[in-house]
Amino acid sequence: MLSTTINKERVSIIGSGNWGSAVGKIIGQNVLKHKDVFDTEVRQWVFEETFQGEKLTTLINRDHENPKYLPGIKFTDNIKATPDLLEACRDATVLVFVLPHQFVREVCEDLAGKISPNARAISLIKGLEIKPDQVVLFSEEIAKRLGLRVAALSGANIADEVAQEKFCETTIGCTSEDGDLFFKLFNTPYFRVNVIQDAVGVQLCGALKNVVAVGAGFSDGLGYGSNTKAAIIRRGLLEMRKFGQTFFGTVENETFFESCGVADLITTCAGGRNRRVAEAFVKTGKPIDVLEQELLHGQKLQGTLTAKEVHDFLAPRGLVNEFPLFETVYRICYENAPIESIVRDI
Amino acid sequence: MLSTTINKERVSIIGSGNWGSAVGKIIGQNVLKHKDVFDTEVRQWVFEETFQGEKLTTLINRDHENPKYLPGIKFTDNIKATPDLLEACRDATVLVFVLPHQFVREVCEDLAGKISPNARAISLIKGLEIKPDQVVLFSEEIAKRLGLRVAALSGANIADEVAQEKFCETTIGCTSEDGDLFFKLFNTPYFRVNVIQDAVGVQLCGALKNVVAVGAGFSDGLGYGSNTKAAIIRRGLLEMRKFGQTFFGTVENETFFESCGVADLITTCAGGRNRRVAEAFVKTGKPIDVLEQELLHGQKLQGTLTAKEVHDFLAPRGLVNEFPLFETVYRICYENAPIESIVRDI
Repeated sequence: MLSTTINKERVSIIGSGNWGSAVGKIIGQNVLKHKDVFDTEVRQWVFEETFQGEKLTTLINRDHENPKYLPGIKFTDNIKATPDLLEACRDATVLVFVLPHQFVREVCEDLAGKISPNARAISLIKGLEIKPDQVVLFSEEIAKRLGLRVAALSGANIADEVAQEKFCETTIGCTSEDGDLFFKLFNTPYFRVNVIQDAVGVQLCGALKNVVAVGAGFSDGLGYGSNTKAAIIRRGLLEMRKFGQTFFGTVENETFFESCGVADLITTCAGGRNRRVAEAFVKTGKPIDVLEQELLHGQKLQGTLTAKEVHDFLAPRGLVNEFPLFETVYRICYENAPIESIVRDI
Repeated sequence: MLSTTINKERVSIIGSGNWGSAVGKIIGQNVLKHKDVFDTEVRQWVFEETFQGEKLTTLINRDHENPKYLPGIKFTDNIKATPDLLEACRDATVLVFVLPHQFVREVCEDLAGKISPNARAISLIKGLEIKPDQVVLFSEEIAKRLGLRVAALSGANIADEVAQEKFCETTIGCTSEDGDLFFKLFNTPYFRVNVIQDAVGVQLCGALKNVVAVGAGFSDGLGYGSNTKAAIIRRGLLEMRKFGQTFFGTVENETFFESCGVADLITTCAGGRNRRVAEAFVKTGKPIDVLEQELLHGQKLQGTLTAKEVHDFLAPRGLVNEFPLFETVYRICYENAPIESIVRDI
C-alpha cells in the first residue's frame, strides 16, 4: 500500500489567480478521476492575502473556492491551499506553473535544489520576454533554473469561461514522454486537450497574438468592418508563424491550426483587453498609459509592450520590414504613426 | 494601331448583383489603370429588370451605378451594361463569372461555341454542388462546358465593404499562367490579391465555411462565449481542410492560411446570414424554413443546404464520423439532434 502511494504522481499548483483557480478546479477533478495515476491531494501555492478580513488560504481551504480571483466556482476538496511555496511543492512530481511571469524567477530561486529529482513541470504562464538579444520562453527558463523537463499549455481559454465549463480546447506542447500524463491531468469533456511536440510555438502564439489584437482593435476603432479585421487577423497569424520559424527552427506550421494558434488569436481579437484598449485609443485619442489607468486599473497592456519588444528585437537584425503588421502596431503606439497605416502599411 | 487594339484583353463581366457590381467597380478602374494590357471598355451582362419604372441597364449606363443591387456606389463610365449575353461576351478574352450558381449551366449553354478561342475565365461564383457521387466545382463546370481555362476567386469579401473601399484581401486560385493577368484585373490598394495554384481549395473553402458558420451560430444562440466559438471555427477549418485533402489530392495546407480560408471563415462566423439564422434557430425554436421566410425573404440558407449535401456525400462512403462538426450541424438541422451536441459530439 505504501509503495503504491509513493509511486503515484503528486501534483502541485504554483499560483492561484483567476487562471490558476480555473485550472485548479480541473486538476482537482482529474486527479480524483485518475486515482491510479495521481495522489488525490493537490497542493496549491497561494500568495497570501487578506480578503474581507480573513486569510485567502483559510477561505480557500474552508469554502473550496477562491473568493478573490474566481468567486462562485467550487473546487473539489482535495485542493489544499498553502502560503508556503516549499511546503506546496514538497515531494511533488508534477509542478504546474500558473502565475504572472514577473514572479517566475523569484519562485525558481526559492525552489532550486528543493524539488524532487524526478519531477517535471508544465508552464501555463502567459507571455514571454523578448530581449534585444534573445527570446526567453518561460518553459526554458524554468527548465534551466530547476533542471526539469518543462512542457507548455496555451489555448483559447478565457479563465471565467473555462471555470463555467463552457466548451473549449487547449494545446499542450511537450517534447518529452510526459504528454500522456499532462493529458490526463488537464483533459475534460469541456476542456479538450491536444498534445503536440512544439512547445516553443505554443508559447510564441500566446504572446504574439496580443500584438495582432492591438491591430484588430485599431481596425475596430476606425470602423473598418469585418473584412478588414479578418485580413489583419490573417496577416497576424502569418507573421506569428514567420517569427517563430525565422528564430526557432522547430516551430511547425500545424501549431498555428491548434487552439493555441488560430483559435486563441480569434478569441483575443474578438474580445479581450488588448483589442478593447486599442479601440479606445482610436476613439478617444488618449495615450495608451492613460487608458491603462482608466480601463485596466493601471495594469500594463501586454500587446503594446510585446510590440515594442518585437521591434527592439527585429530592428538590430534589419528585419522590421519583414513583419509589417507587428511593425505598424509598434509605430502607431510609439512613433505617432497615423492609425490608418494599420491597413495602408501592411 | 489596329493590331495593338486587337491584342489587348477584352474583359466581360457576367453578372451584376451585389458582388458583381462591387467587382465591376474594381475592374472598371483597373482596366483604365492598365491600358497597356486591357481594352478600356468592359461589357457587363445584366439580367434585365425594371427598377423604379426604368430598365436596369439604362440606369446603369446613364448613372454609372447599379441602383438596385449596389446603390450609392459609382462605377467608372467604361462599364457598359447590356441585357444581351452574347453581345456582352462577343470578342471577350477574359470572362468574369459572378452570378448565382443556379444560372451557370444556362449561361454556359448560351455561350457554348460563341466564345473567342483564346478566352479564359475566372469564377467568382459562390458555393459548389456536392452530389452523392461527386463534388462539382463551378470553375471545372465552366471549363468543361466552354473549353476554357478557368481560375477562381474567393476571400473575406463582403461586397458592401469592398464597394466602400474598406481594406481586405482575396485569393485567386489559378493553375495556369493567367495569374498575373488576373492580379492586374483585380488587385487594388484596398483589395489585395494573392494568387495561389490551388483553385480547388479556394472554391471548397467558399462553400464549406457556411456549414461552420451554422455551427458558430448555434454556439452563439446557446450563449457559449468566445472560447467555444473559436473552438468551433478551428475544428471547422480542420474539417474543411480534411474534406479537401481527402477528396482532392491537390488541396494544399497553405490555402487555409489564405484570405479564402481562415479570413473568410472568421468573417462568416462573425457576421453573415448563416450564423445569424442559426442563432435565431436556437433562440426562437422556429424551423429553418420559417426563419428563411422571416429573415431572408424566402431565400435558402446556404450552410444548411451544404451540410446536407456533405452528409449525403459522406454517408455512402462511411465517412460521416470523420467530420464530426459537419455531421453534427447536419443532425441538428435535419434530424432533431439536440443543439448542445454542437459541442458534445465534435
